Amino acid sequence: MKLYFSAGQLAHQPKQYMVHGKLIHAFENNDRALALLDALAGAGLYPLEPVNHGLAPILSVHSDHYIDFLQTAHSEFMKLPNAGPEVLPNVHAYVGSSPSLVPRGKPRPTGIVGRSGWYVGDLSAVIMEGTWQSALVSAHTAISAAEAILGGDFAAFALCRPPGHHAYVDRASGFCFLNNAAIAAERLRSRYARVAVLDFDTHHGDGTQAIFYARDDVFFGSVHTDPSSYYPHYLGYADEKGAGKGTGYNLNRPLSFGADDAVFIDANRDIIGAALKFGAEAIVISAGWDAHHKDPLSKLNVTTDAYARIGALYGQIDLPTVIVQEGGYSLEAIAESVLSFTQAFRAAKGV
Amino acid sequence: MKLYFSAGQLAHQPKQYMVHGKLIHAFENNDRALALLDALAGAGLYPLEPVNHGLAPILSVHSDHYIDFLQTAHSEFMKLPNAGPEVLPNVHAYVGSSPSLVPRGKPRPTGIVGRSGWYVGDLSAVIMEGTWQSALVSAHTAISAAEAILGGDFAAFALCRPPGHHAYVDRASGFCFLNNAAIAAERLRSRYARVAVLDFDTHHGDGTQAIFYARDDVFFGSVHTDPSSYYPHYLGYADEKGAGKGTGYNLNRPLSFGADDAVFIDANRDIIGAALKFGAEAIVISAGWDAHHKDPLSKLNVTTDAYARIGALYGQIDLPTVIVQEGGYSLEAIAESVLSFTQAFRAAKGV
Repeated sequence: MKLYFSAGQLAHQPKQYMVHGKLIHAFENNDRALALLDALAGAGLYPLEPVNHGLAPILSVHSDHYIDFLQTAHSEFMKLPNAGPEVLPNVHAYVGSSPSLVPRGKPRPTGIVGRSGWYVGDLSAVIMEGTWQSALVSAHTAISAAEAILGGDFAAFALCRPPGHHAYVDRASGFCFLNNAAIAAERLRSRYARVAVLDFDTHHGDGTQAIFYARDDVFFGSVHTDPSSYYPHYLGYADEKGAGKGTGYNLNRPLSFGADDAVFIDANRDIIGAALKFGAEAIVISAGWDAHHKDPLSKLNVTTDAYARIGALYGQIDLPTVIVQEGGYSLEAIAESVLSFTQAFRAAKGV
Repeated sequence: MKLYFSAGQLAHQPKQYMVHGKLIHAFENNDRALALLDALAGAGLYPLEPVNHGLAPILSVHSDHYIDFLQTAHSEFMKLPNAGPEVLPNVHAYVGSSPSLVPRGKPRPTGIVGRSGWYVGDLSAVIMEGTWQSALVSAHTAISAAEAILGGDFAAFALCRPPGHHAYVDRASGFCFLNNAAIAAERLRSRYARVAVLDFDTHHGDGTQAIFYARDDVFFGSVHTDPSSYYPHYLGYADEKGAGKGTGYNLNRPLSFGADDAVFIDANRDIIGAALKFGAEAIVISAGWDAHHKDPLSKLNVTTDAYARIGALYGQIDLPTVIVQEGGYSLEAIAESVLSFTQAFRAAKGV
């Protein structure tokens, strides 16, 4: 199984992140990628440099005006009087119980403050000088893994960083800028009529869900922590089942705080079953390791063993599969988890 | 002319405010109210204590779940692990070019982080322990001024602080929590069939516009700085003319950066003319002094003399009028402006 990663993904090193009313040090950092690389080397996987496939596969998911924003936001923001070191939005358009008077589509404001609040949904998706470069390379890591499948491989691992599953068509949020998994799924769609994105990061993949919600050619299934009191808060509920012709092709399995290995594994079995019933011909896995009980963000009680167990489940799916790295913030837990998952996945799949 | 103000409005003293990617010291502060009081004393106006009229007039504008949030947000937020001193939202629901999957109305998240991001639209509307108390008293200051009109006075001045015109039905933003002007207008509606809210704060009154946008009994007219690169960024454009039966009863006069007294006065004349044409029987003025060239937020070139000139224009309207204090952040400029405006207004109106 090929593993893709580029050192270009390390340029994104934001200094700050707001949580619970305080600016603290960002913990979606480079050490994560290096810990995952080390762990995967222990499984005999060494990274290949991703190929640059240009902007077209990225524009199959993201709007051009959002891509323009990501490319120019930091330099524009730095021109503001007394600017801080990084793009942090401070104002957002209204969402609430009364109708929004703001037209959808491109934002009306031309200034960088208004555009930052439009395109950046929270204070974790911090844009610094190297962010666009890293996000771009991270997306090409996912595209290169999808290309390996199109070239005949049966599985590939995209060590994406920054992660992607909270990125919308035109919004960065949750440490994410470009939706690597969605971009890989679109790439696989060039050959496979039906693709499933299965997401077991402990945060609901709201960006991926939103991108494919009204689509009948891409199924999205997610196992995650109940969002009632957990990021991303506004999406990830069990009654979100798709819209229009996409109705029935979105499956959320929110788990209560404290859920253990058995519950976690069963929920993964459910979304896999639904993807097969959907008729998926290829799979993209959004793999996060932050359900692990050692993760600083985790509210679940999932152990390393569960990742070995679901690695076997995903490996037993007899379909070409791209694994896309999402979250996981304990260096110890992600190293253990990625290794256990990947070894079990490869053993089951024979790759 | 009666002036209303209560020392209870001074409990709200947030420490911080995010601008251009930095947390800085809040400048919507108590000194503003004290400077305005001093200046108005120079015009012979001394404050009366507002009467508490209960929650009913506030609930005529704001949703009950939002009022619950304002009352409990700070104490709930303080229970978060490692919480900062004040409520600062860090995540918001998606608004963009793809359809929102989030239902309108009450927010789905029950946790305080998700609810804070739903009910607080930016990092200027900071909630601390005394915020609800001050916002409540500020609203009753406006209600008391409206009651003075209903009791037979021809004009009254509500020295509201915190201000109100950026507050929506269920959202705090732009230093505002309760929409004092909208609440006063609703109170006047108990007697007058048609009320106009006229707003010359240099920031568009997006909350007030949104509250009355589909209404044919309340006209909203606003003179403000072009929002393309200026707060509130997403609303305040000239083509926003009302919706449904409210079509034609919203008038925005955005002014370009650098606009001078003549332009500012003409635009005020326009919204006054439109309010009279609408058939207004009573007026609420949202009075901010931040178009003044000395204001730290101003992008216009308006002088103290312009406030005297528009004071005369508003005073010449032969309708009962409530003046509601909104923004203005230079202590020197607000003292000069409120005095010049109020003296000219009283002279013209004979109050």
